[in-house]
Amino acid sequence: MNTVYFDHNSTAALHPQVLEVMLPFMTAQHGNPTSRHVFGRNARDAVEYARAQVAETVGVQASQVVFTASGTEANNFAIRGIAGNLAPSQMLYSSIEHPCVSRPALALQTNGWQVNKIKVDPHGQLDLEHLNALLQRPTGLISVMLANNETGALQPLTAVTAAAKQHKAFVHTDAVQALGKVPVDFYDLGVHAMTLSSHKIGGPLGAGALVLDKRVDIQPLLLGGGQEKGLRSGTENVAAIVGFGAACAIAQQQLADYQTHTTLLRSQLEAGLHQLKATVFGAENAQRLPNTSFFAFHHIEGETLVTALDKAGFAVASGSACSSDSTEPSHVLLAMGVEEELARGAVRVSLSAHNTVQQVDTFLATLAQEVKRLKAMTAIAA
Amino acid sequence: MNTVYFDHNSTAALHPQVLEVMLPFMTAQHGNPTSRHVFGRNARDAVEYARAQVAETVGVQASQVVFTASGTEANNFAIRGIAGNLAPSQMLYSSIEHPCVSRPALALQTNGWQVNKIKVDPHGQLDLEHLNALLQRPTGLISVMLANNETGALQPLTAVTAAAKQHKAFVHTDAVQALGKVPVDFYDLGVHAMTLSSHKIGGPLGAGALVLDKRVDIQPLLLGGGQEKGLRSGTENVAAIVGFGAACAIAQQQLADYQTHTTLLRSQLEAGLHQLKATVFGAENAQRLPNTSFFAFHHIEGETLVTALDKAGFAVASGSACSSDSTEPSHVLLAMGVEEELARGAVRVSLSAHNTVQQVDTFLATLAQEVKRLKAMTAIAA
Repeated sequence: MNTVYFDHNSTAALHPQVLEVMLPFMTAQHGNPTSRHVFGRNARDAVEYARAQVAETVGVQASQVVFTASGTEANNFAIRGIAGNLAPSQMLYSSIEHPCVSRPALALQTNGWQVNKIKVDPHGQLDLEHLNALLQRPTGLISVMLANNETGALQPLTAVTAAAKQHKAFVHTDAVQALGKVPVDFYDLGVHAMTLSSHKIGGPLGAGALVLDKRVDIQPLLLGGGQEKGLRSGTENVAAIVGFGAACAIAQQQLADYQTHTTLLRSQLEAGLHQLKATVFGAENAQRLPNTSFFAFHHIEGETLVTALDKAGFAVASGSACSSDSTEPSHVLLAMGVEEELARGAVRVSLSAHNTVQQVDTFLATLAQEVKRLKAMTAIAA
Repeated sequence: MNTVYFDHNSTAALHPQVLEVMLPFMTAQHGNPTSRHVFGRNARDAVEYARAQVAETVGVQASQVVFTASGTEANNFAIRGIAGNLAPSQMLYSSIEHPCVSRPALALQTNGWQVNKIKVDPHGQLDLEHLNALLQRPTGLISVMLANNETGALQPLTAVTAAAKQHKAFVHTDAVQALGKVPVDFYDLGVHAMTLSSHKIGGPLGAGALVLDKRVDIQPLLLGGGQEKGLRSGTENVAAIVGFGAACAIAQQQLADYQTHTTLLRSQLEAGLHQLKATVFGAENAQRLPNTSFFAFHHIEGETLVTALDKAGFAVASGSACSSDSTEPSHVLLAMGVEEELARGAVRVSLSAHNTVQQVDTFLATLAQEVKRLKAMTAIAA
C-alpha cells in the first residue's frame, strides 16, 4: 500500500526482526509449553526467555510478569482481580482512561464499590488536588494511565502513588501507550500493577502483560488449566509472547533514537499545524509522548478529514481508534474542557521511528489543501 | 527436530497454507480493524471473511460467531456470561470437562448457583440417567463437551439438548477437540453456545470463538472498546483470526480424508497396543475421535513412559497436557471408574493427517522395548 501510516498509537507495524524470531514458533517449534516432551520444553524455554525480556524493560523480576492476550485483558484482570480480593470501598480512575479501564471500573459498582473519576486539567493532566480531595474517602484502588492514547499527555504517576501510599490504596497504571516511547520503570513509578501491550511497540497482536508488585493479591480472570502460576489459564500463545519479548528488547535498545526522531518529526508537524491555524490539544504540556499530535480545525469534522486524508494517502485517526465505532466526541477532550464542536474535529497523528521528514512535509501540504477544500464546502453549505 | 509429534490434541502444528494467509497481516497489512483508513478497512474485511469461514464450518451465520483469544477464554465467557444473565439456579457439567469449564462453573457457587457434576459411564460417555435425575431440580445451564480431550469419547449432545429443552436449560458445549476431527453442526446438536479453538486444528494460537444461538443473552467477560458488538472488547488479533478462518476451511475440506487416515493409523496403533497387553481406555466406545488413543500399562508410571518415549524420539502426552503441571491422576479416568494406579500410567497418543504408518510402526517397536525395560526395572526395585 502506498498510504503513509501515521496511526501507530492504534496499532504499530510488526518489526521485521520480531517476525523473524516468531517464525520458528509458527513452524517447527509448535509445542504447548505445558507438555513435557522436547516440543513442550522448547516452548516453555522460549516463553520464559520472553518473560525475562519484558521484565527487564520495566525493571522488575521475571516472576512479576503475567502474560495475557492483550492490554484490554490485562486491564480487566487488574481491576477486577485486585478489587475482588479487597473489601469494597472507593475505586478511582482518571477521566481520560481507555474504556478497557473505565468500564471494568464502573462494573465494580455492582459489587458494592463506589467508583469515581479524577478530573484532568485543560492540558490533559491529572488534577492532583481533585485526587487528594477524593482520597479523603477510604479508597482501595486507583487506576491512572501513564500516557494518554489520544493527546499523549504523560500523567504524574509518582505523585499519584505518593498520595495513594498515605491512604494505603493500590495503584494500577495502564502503560500501554508509554512503553517504547518514554522510559517506564515499575519501581520508579511506585505502582502495584502495570498493564503492557505488545502490538503498540512493534510486537504482534495477541500478547499483553500485567506486571505485579509481589505484595498484590489478585484473583484470576480466566480459570482453567492453571497456566501462569494459576493467575491466567489458557495455552500460552508462544509465538506472540516470543515476539512481545523481542519487541520489548528492541524498543528498549532504540528508545533514545526513537525519542529524538519522533520529537523532531512532531516539531515539524506542529509548526505546520500552527501555520494552518489548527488547535493542537495539550501542546503546552511539556510531559507528552514524543510521537503523538492531536489537533482540530474549527468547522471541520474529524471523521470527514480522516476520510479525505485517507483518500489522499495518509492513515490517521479521529478520536481514539479503539472506540471509533462510536460517533461521540472524544471523552478525553471533553474531560479537558474542550468545547464539543471543536472536539468533534479531532484528528490524531501518531508517528514511529520509520516515518520521515519527507512524509511529514507531504502530509502538511495535503492537509493544507484538504482543509481549504473542506472549509470552502462548509462555506457554500452555510 | 527429529522427534515424531504424536500430541496433536495438545496443540497441532500450524498448517503451512494457514501461515501463508496470515503473513500479509503480519507485514504490510497491519491495520486495527476499528480504524477507518485503508489499513483498518482491509483488516476489518479480513476479520469478517474469517468469521464467515468459521461460521460455515459449524453451520451458523457469521453474526453468531464472537472471536476470543482462546478456547479457555470462550469457555469462561460462555459460562460466566450466560449464567450472569440468569437468576441463579442449578448448573450442570460433565465430570470429564476440561478445567476451563469446570473451574468457571464451580466459581458460580459464589453467586448463589448450585453446581453439580454429571457422571460418565466406564467408557467415558455421559450418564444420561444421571443427567435426567439431576434435571429434576430447576437448571439454568448445562455444559457438556463434544469430544473428550483425553479419551476422545464423543458425548451424546443431542440427547443432552433434548433433555435440556424439556427443562428450559441452556446448553453449552466445548467443541474444541471435536472440530476438524468429526463433523460439527451447531443446529444438529441443538446447543445454545459452542466453544471453538484455532490451534487444535492447524490454526495459530491466539484465536478462539464462542458461537451463540441468537436467543442467548450473554454478558461480556472483557469490557472496553466495544469490539465484537460489545461482546468482547480488545483489538482483534487479525492475523490469528485470519489463520483460524483458513484453518477451519482447510479442516472442513479435508475432514473425510483426515478421518480415514487417522482411523487407519489408530487401528494399527491399537492392534499393537493390544499385543503389548496395554489397557486402552474407552476403546469399546464406537463414538470416539478417530485420532486419539489413551492407554496404560500396569506398574508403569505415565510420566516415566512419556519421558522415556521423548528420549527415544516420540512426543506423546501423559494425562491431559493442559493440566500436566499437576501430578494428580487424570480426573477423566477417575470419573470413568479406572483404578488410581492404572490411571497414573495413562499415556495419550493423538495423531494427525501428517503422521504415517511407518511412524506408528516405529513407535510400537520403541514402546515394546521401553515397556520391557521399565517393567524389568520395576521388578528389580520390587
